Amino acid sequence: MAKGNGNGNGHGHGNGKAAVAELLRSRKLRVAVVGCGYWGPKVIRAAASLPEVEIAALVDLDLDLAAKVQRHLPAARTTTSLTEALKDETIDAVVVATNPATHVELASEALEAGKHVLVEKPLALSAGDCRTLGSDARERGLTLMVGHTFRFSPPVQHVRELMRGRELGEVYYVDSQRLNLGRVRSDVDKIWNFGPHDVSIVQHWFGVQPVAVHCHAYDYLQAGVPDLAFIVLEYDFAVAHIQLSWLSPEKVRRMTVVGSRKMVVYDDVANQVMVHDAGIDREHLGRSFGEFQSFGEFRLIQRSGDMHVPRLPHVEPLQAQCQHFLDCVFTGKEPITNFEEAARVVQILEAATESRKNGGERVELREVAVSV
Amino acid sequence: MAKGNGNGNGHGHGNGKAAVAELLRSRKLRVAVVGCGYWGPKVIRAAASLPEVEIAALVDLDLDLAAKVQRHLPAARTTTSLTEALKDETIDAVVVATNPATHVELASEALEAGKHVLVEKPLALSAGDCRTLGSDARERGLTLMVGHTFRFSPPVQHVRELMRGRELGEVYYVDSQRLNLGRVRSDVDKIWNFGPHDVSIVQHWFGVQPVAVHCHAYDYLQAGVPDLAFIVLEYDFAVAHIQLSWLSPEKVRRMTVVGSRKMVVYDDVANQVMVHDAGIDREHLGRSFGEFQSFGEFRLIQRSGDMHVPRLPHVEPLQAQCQHFLDCVFTGKEPITNFEEAARVVQILEAATESRKNGGERVELREVAVSV
Amino acid sequence: MAKGNGNGNGHGHGNGKAAVAELLRSRKLRVAVVGCGYWGPKVIRAAASLPEVEIAALVDLDLDLAAKVQRHLPAARTTTSLTEALKDETIDAVVVATNPATHVELASEALEAGKHVLVEKPLALSAGDCRTLGSDARERGLTLMVGHTFRFSPPVQHVRELMRGRELGEVYYVDSQRLNLGRVRSDVDKIWNFGPHDVSIVQHWFGVQPVAVHCHAYDYLQAGVPDLAFIVLEYDFAVAHIQLSWLSPEKVRRMTVVGSRKMVVYDDVANQVMVHDAGIDREHLGRSFGEFQSFGEFRLIQRSGDMHVPRLPHVEPLQAQCQHFLDCVFTGKEPITNFEEAARVVQILEAATESRKNGGERVELREVAVSV
Amino acid sequence: MAKGNGNGNGHGHGNGKAAVAELLRSRKLRVAVVGCGYWGPKVIRAAASLPEVEIAALVDLDLDLAAKVQRHLPAARTTTSLTEALKDETIDAVVVATNPATHVELASEALEAGKHVLVEKPLALSAGDCRTLGSDARERGLTLMVGHTFRFSPPVQHVRELMRGRELGEVYYVDSQRLNLGRVRSDVDKIWNFGPHDVSIVQHWFGVQPVAVHCHAYDYLQAGVPDLAFIVLEYDFAVAHIQLSWLSPEKVRRMTVVGSRKMVVYDDVANQVMVHDAGIDREHLGRSFGEFQSFGEFRLIQRSGDMHVPRLPHVEPLQAQCQHFLDCVFTGKEPITNFEEAARVVQILEAATESRKNGGERVELREVAVSV
Repeated sequence: MAKGNGNGNGHGHGNGKAAVAELLRSRKLRVAVVGCGYWGPKVIRAAASLPEVEIAALVDLDLDLAAKVQRHLPAARTTTSLTEALKDETIDAVVVATNPATHVELASEALEAGKHVLVEKPLALSAGDCRTLGSDARERGLTLMVGHTFRFSPPVQHVRELMRGRELGEVYYVDSQRLNLGRVRSDVDKIWNFGPHDVSIVQHWFGVQPVAVHCHAYDYLQAGVPDLAFIVLEYDFAVAHIQLSWLSPEKVRRMTVVGSRKMVVYDDVANQVMVHDAGIDREHLGRSFGEFQSFGEFRLIQRSGDMHVPRLPHVEPLQAQCQHFLDCVFTGKEPITNFEEAARVVQILEAATESRKNGGERVELREVAVSV
Repeated sequence: MAKGNGNGNGHGHGNGKAAVAELLRSRKLRVAVVGCGYWGPKVIRAAASLPEVEIAALVDLDLDLAAKVQRHLPAARTTTSLTEALKDETIDAVVVATNPATHVELASEALEAGKHVLVEKPLALSAGDCRTLGSDARERGLTLMVGHTFRFSPPVQHVRELMRGRELGEVYYVDSQRLNLGRVRSDVDKIWNFGPHDVSIVQHWFGVQPVAVHCHAYDYLQAGVPDLAFIVLEYDFAVAHIQLSWLSPEKVRRMTVVGSRKMVVYDDVANQVMVHDAGIDREHLGRSFGEFQSFGEFRLIQRSGDMHVPRLPHVEPLQAQCQHFLDCVFTGKEPITNFEEAARVVQILEAATESRKNGGERVELREVAVSV
Repeated sequence: MAKGNGNGNGHGHGNGKAAVAELLRSRKLRVAVVGCGYWGPKVIRAAASLPEVEIAALVDLDLDLAAKVQRHLPAARTTTSLTEALKDETIDAVVVATNPATHVELASEALEAGKHVLVEKPLALSAGDCRTLGSDARERGLTLMVGHTFRFSPPVQHVRELMRGRELGEVYYVDSQRLNLGRVRSDVDKIWNFGPHDVSIVQHWFGVQPVAVHCHAYDYLQAGVPDLAFIVLEYDFAVAHIQLSWLSPEKVRRMTVVGSRKMVVYDDVANQVMVHDAGIDREHLGRSFGEFQSFGEFRLIQRSGDMHVPRLPHVEPLQAQCQHFLDCVFTGKEPITNFEEAARVVQILEAATESRKNGGERVELREVAVSV
Repeated sequence: MAKGNGNGNGHGHGNGKAAVAELLRSRKLRVAVVGCGYWGPKVIRAAASLPEVEIAALVDLDLDLAAKVQRHLPAARTTTSLTEALKDETIDAVVVATNPATHVELASEALEAGKHVLVEKPLALSAGDCRTLGSDARERGLTLMVGHTFRFSPPVQHVRELMRGRELGEVYYVDSQRLNLGRVRSDVDKIWNFGPHDVSIVQHWFGVQPVAVHCHAYDYLQAGVPDLAFIVLEYDFAVAHIQLSWLSPEKVRRMTVVGSRKMVVYDDVANQVMVHDAGIDREHLGRSFGEFQSFGEFRLIQRSGDMHVPRLPHVEPLQAQCQHFLDCVFTGKEPITNFEEAARVVQILEAATESRKNGGERVELREVAVSV
């Protein structure tokens, strides 16, 4: 494989690409991974488990980290620079799993070298940068994908299906808690580190951008690097509240969706979705019913019924994400977590950061309409 | 007993009061309860379990509710008006367990009639009204107490002792969730209904008023009556986040206190306090240690040690609250949940309401210093 | 009311009884309770909550215990002897909540005096005594009922319905744990104290007596009074295992029913039934399927599907039990927990005791067939 | 390395061995693994993670299984026969992870070829076979170890320390549940499959053999292959109860140790030990205390105090087991899970099987005293 021919024909690769993809399918995709610290090895393990992938190069400023990973991947070269790694023309794709501040530069370099790119979340630190990278990839006919891992999680998909099928009724609000005693980082704050997960999930569920964002955040360990944040995403029809903390005695990854007909708790630690047939029903007067309270013209009746825990397929989201990247590279199709999706998530995080700096002030999002 | 002599000598009753209290101790305290709906019967049960109490009158606009309670209290009279009940001069005290909007009027009437008064939370809907009622009671030498029930809960007291003893180190933040599928009320919103609990607990723990308040609240079931609220109390040194909801699939009553040395989870549903010896330690460079990450001049080291669940005394807070009211009436001492405490809590709820009406805008509290 | 007319016409009262029952329905049932220790007050509270009941007498050898209960029941007389209490001819029924060793004597005395009788479990310490009491009651046309409380529990009834509806498929086994840090008793061992619960539930579910019983039991605190027991009930088609302990760090009341089609966990502490669509399916060879292992002519395929928690009615079993007793007294119908049911339960406990004394030896039950 | 010199000097290798061990330390231990089905790959992963180990050969009758594992171990040869694999003289050790019925034959062949051997539990199906293998290994100066994995688990070791330090007081009983919806096997029943875990743990804790064994077991899926078992181990001073099931809706791995001073719950699924300061205290009369009940000359007082969850080291037992095997091979020291330990565990399982075949009859163990 190698360089894209840059015909830039929108969603999907050019015709020449299809032929190349066909060729590629007959051999393994050779991948360079940049960043062998905490997350890199997890991506590498997921990627290496796919028979179509060959880890060809491991890049890290700290060569010891690269060497440690290399022990289980004898075929991979180690180096401290992506430029060095890209001298190997047989490399097809680059995975960027570094400090977010370096994503744009590394992804650009890889795209320029004609490589397909998978970048860990967040794709960039501004929505503008996301779009610039995206245009670049499209022009070159290359796959550019961001690692919004939870988009590949069966519970997240199941909740979306419940919402789309109107099983939950009118959705009132989503509440998310993502708490742990953290691997505190200095290169990225809690909002940009974990926030992309919640924001991409909520966006996937609601399908539109919020109207406005509030963020209250606090820095206890390092001045200017929030380790606790409360984010409020206001939609025309609902609200999402996201609580993030690196300072918590218990690991909590729990999202609650409250609808008028049903309520759902998605516990990511237990990898379980609990669907509660519960709610408060409004009944117009005239009917007579069980336990109720009447206000004005209607009564509010509490309904607390069965609870159901559906069996979901056993899928490792990180592995499914790698597989989707492969599929996109091989077929030329657009990733579901493409640069536009990334830009929407980053736009919200930018607004949250602006709100945080102004003491939680309401920040409106300029463009609301989004194609989904 | 009967009328207070109104000598108004500040904290505690006058000398004449002591004599009367002495007298009173030899017989039962005769109590009228106003409000026999949801909460009233719970207070009545707690009060009636004390041998020093006799429920003398049950007042409710809905006489059927009063009659239902009366079945187990054959000695009590039922009536639809407090005025009517107060015609019985042998009544010593009045418990007000009605719609919050009626608290001031009913408490005033009882005080004017020379009765000691226990009012359910919130004492009033404005801090000014709390203080007016308080002055009135002091002038008359009567006990006026508000039912901040959790002040009498052993877990709440235990957490305060841990904080006061500096066991948690520097306290970073408190996070509280009070969620259930509600008995939705039209007479009071979620903030004023459940908020007094969290606010009085947090205030008890921190011992000072917050500097500013934010409140984001949403009304799904009844226009203008929030059923979901996120309240942020900002202190000079810490933050408290309070989440309240009437629309939740699970009953959650959980407060987390995160300190620099230890972290505490107080689960009110399990009636348990879990003390985690966990945190992120800052170590100045020069020392060498286990798993760490170095930022500038110091390293952040994760510490995750033992977990401890202390055995706490079995006390029913509502019963302890009734007992404390009795003690105050009998000895003339000031209730720990007096009108000043009530005013501080209500001041915060007023600020939250103001913030909510302005889309979560920051509302500063004028007077910060508070004697504790 | 008063004496039964002793026409002894089998199940149900005689015609005269019906007339008396009719009469009775127009006024309250006057009840004497013998035993005001731990369990008595619970029964009294449940009974007193029924409007058709009036607690007329409280009997306990320790008059202080009776007096303590009487505080909330001013109309009741207190005495140390049932004989004394029965001098009040207006008493209609007697509840026996004393030491099991005294049940037969007290129940006999009450029946002789023509009173309906509700006896706490176990009805007697031998199946023979159960039957003697039963004949006596039938001859006199009186209601005799034993307090197998769990027969009135919605989760227990729900599991029975699942079994009867063949929803669980072929039932393989029942496993029960009833553990706590006990109120250790010297008057009754763990087997006779808690065993009646599990045995009556299992018998209700299976509908037949076991073929044989094993019991391994151990006494740590008091010589000869087991505080730990493992009971095995062997049926032709299934097995039930019951673990009882007074020495356990956690309160556990959990029964698991494993069927070929579904499995059920009934957690009495959480008051919840969880229905798991799970099992191991046998498939005859020839078909091809997912994860399987083939043995001989068939394959075993693991099936692990959804989990369902049905909403069950909120019923207080002790109150439902009192209500059933009332219904039987008023209508003359046979209690579902009559003396025959009691005899079947006691027969199993007798066999368990015999097995325990012989080191867990298999004890066969003579008569297996039982009408249900 | 290669053949042992067979000097048979008891515990530890001969001097010649020490020299060889020294030599060996300078290069990797080359290991052949027999059995690449369910458990084999887990052992291989643990072994391969140790830098001193090289997987040299993968043996399985099903060559596809061996090939699947080999994908991640390019240096390993695959073959269907141990005899074939042993032709490679550079192999130092053999891991046997096959059907238990084949353990003796395969281990014997490996020992005869002069290889060190690690055998999965159970070492053999009779205590006699365990001892024969052990003698063989000693004579040849080779390491023979059985994979009683839980002996290397920090929670198991912690509970033993609590028992040895008398922190629990007098130990009354151990109760164990090991339940799941099984990978049902036809080559080994539930007793021999999972029983070695519980029996080796209990034996480690108590340090002596039980006096007698009962076993009640039931076969629902395959005639003659129990899938449900209740085992009772009777000691002079205590009892252990072990419940095993392949037919359970929930995965439970939970052991409770009840002592006179404290009680411990070890939950293997949560990987947690909970120490409860709880019990029933016997107090001689004369003293006055809180809640108590007096029987004869003493009172039983319930004590329910704090609960403590100690932080234990993060150790992967399977990896620690492989490391211990390496240490024994390198230093010539005796494995803590040697053939004598294996024989004691197998003796109990043999007794359980005998008891099961006789309907749960008590089976006494001939030799009780055991060196620990």
